[in-house]
Amino acid sequence: MNPNVISVNVNADQEEVVHLVKKYDLVNIPVVDDQNRLVGRITHDDVIDVIEDEVDEDMTRIAGVIDQEITEDSPLKISRARLPWLIGGIFGELISALVISRFESSLEKVIALSFFFPVIMAMGGNTGQQAAIIVVRGLATGDISLMRTGKRLLTEMKVAFGNGIICGVLLGLIVGTWLSNYELGAVVALALLMVMLNAGFIGSAVPLAFKRIGVDPALATGPFVSTSNDILGLLIYLLFVTFYLRMAT
Amino acid sequence: MNPNVISVNVNADQEEVVHLVKKYDLVNIPVVDDQNRLVGRITHDDVIDVIEDEVDEDMTRIAGVIDQEITEDSPLKISRARLPWLIGGIFGELISALVISRFESSLEKVIALSFFFPVIMAMGGNTGQQAAIIVVRGLATGDISLMRTGKRLLTEMKVAFGNGIICGVLLGLIVGTWLSNYELGAVVALALLMVMLNAGFIGSAVPLAFKRIGVDPALATGPFVSTSNDILGLLIYLLFVTFYLRMAT
Repeated sequence: MNPNVISVNVNADQEEVVHLVKKYDLVNIPVVDDQNRLVGRITHDDVIDVIEDEVDEDMTRIAGVIDQEITEDSPLKISRARLPWLIGGIFGELISALVISRFESSLEKVIALSFFFPVIMAMGGNTGQQAAIIVVRGLATGDISLMRTGKRLLTEMKVAFGNGIICGVLLGLIVGTWLSNYELGAVVALALLMVMLNAGFIGSAVPLAFKRIGVDPALATGPFVSTSNDILGLLIYLLFVTFYLRMAT
Repeated sequence: MNPNVISVNVNADQEEVVHLVKKYDLVNIPVVDDQNRLVGRITHDDVIDVIEDEVDEDMTRIAGVIDQEITEDSPLKISRARLPWLIGGIFGELISALVISRFESSLEKVIALSFFFPVIMAMGGNTGQQAAIIVVRGLATGDISLMRTGKRLLTEMKVAFGNGIICGVLLGLIVGTWLSNYELGAVVALALLMVMLNAGFIGSAVPLAFKRIGVDPALATGPFVSTSNDILGLLIYLLFVTFYLRMAT
């Protein structure tokens, strides 16, 4: 008789079951109570279903939808499920609008500053989502452990810094040439670097923090985090260029 | 002897294997050659690994990262993997900048039009990603079949239309009050409806079309589609408000 049977407690989280089955390639896993008495088993096909469910949940949380929608045919029910995220998006991005409106005098001076809003928003958004997806998947599969939180954060900041320098210089040269003002180009370059550093930090720190306090890290890749990224990104960009415009006059 | 054994051909796609194992809750699946001779078997633990691999691939394609990054510690290697997507993002969103620049005279007239760029971009982006994630997951799990492409497209358009009306009216009222111009508010409302219809169409049609021509539908949720959404969204918004400003003078 083998005294070291792999088993799970009846109160174990389904993710723990998945990890054990994957680790030991089990066909079944015994379920025991607190006195180590066998109360049942979980079979491999249940485990496959759990994996698919968790993935559906993660993926749909990224987009602000619910996984029941995949098999739902009623447009009314689908609409109702998505609408809260969309209305949240309107109010979130109205904060961005409010931020921009506070810099109206800079925009009046150089209206072309608004041309680059999409670039700033998209670069912050992409950088944040790249970091977030990797951290969320890594936490889900167990490849990124909570023990190594600090190390992962540092790696992500290095990545954001390196990519920020390259993208900043590239965008700065384009903006400088476009507006025939390389000083302003340099300011935009520096602003983009700061935007990407900020987005890389939010994208990796929020899912790690969520996991630590017991909230699903997948929520960190969703509309809430991307909205704060937009607001902060535009704020950083407009602060930098406004500071330059004041200095230049 | 059971003459109807479930088996897969040696040339079968790994996704087909996953579907059969899930459907019939198999522990093993026999692999046969073209003459139906047994050449091997695939076990349940291989199937679990395949599911996880496919999910990693889908999720990372959404963000423009590669799944090796999850276990990669070198910032240089991670940077290099993400950089092409970021640089692609810069050039893509510079097309948005170009679109905005063509409407400079409208912006000079009503500088506040630029305040709402983030709302328009985010609403188009969210609507498109909601539709895309549901279609991509539905195609991956087999819940959405290629047979029902037309029906799914119609459902998604109805959803985009309903949500577009509600979000449009809400944003139109806010913009109208903010700028004390309810006519312009109505134009913004109509523009947002068009932006959301366009995004809902792109978000659901592109993954369905990709699947049909044998390209991974997960690519349709990535940076490429969201960039075209930004460009088209801003174009629709600026065309509508510019047309109104010309009529109003």
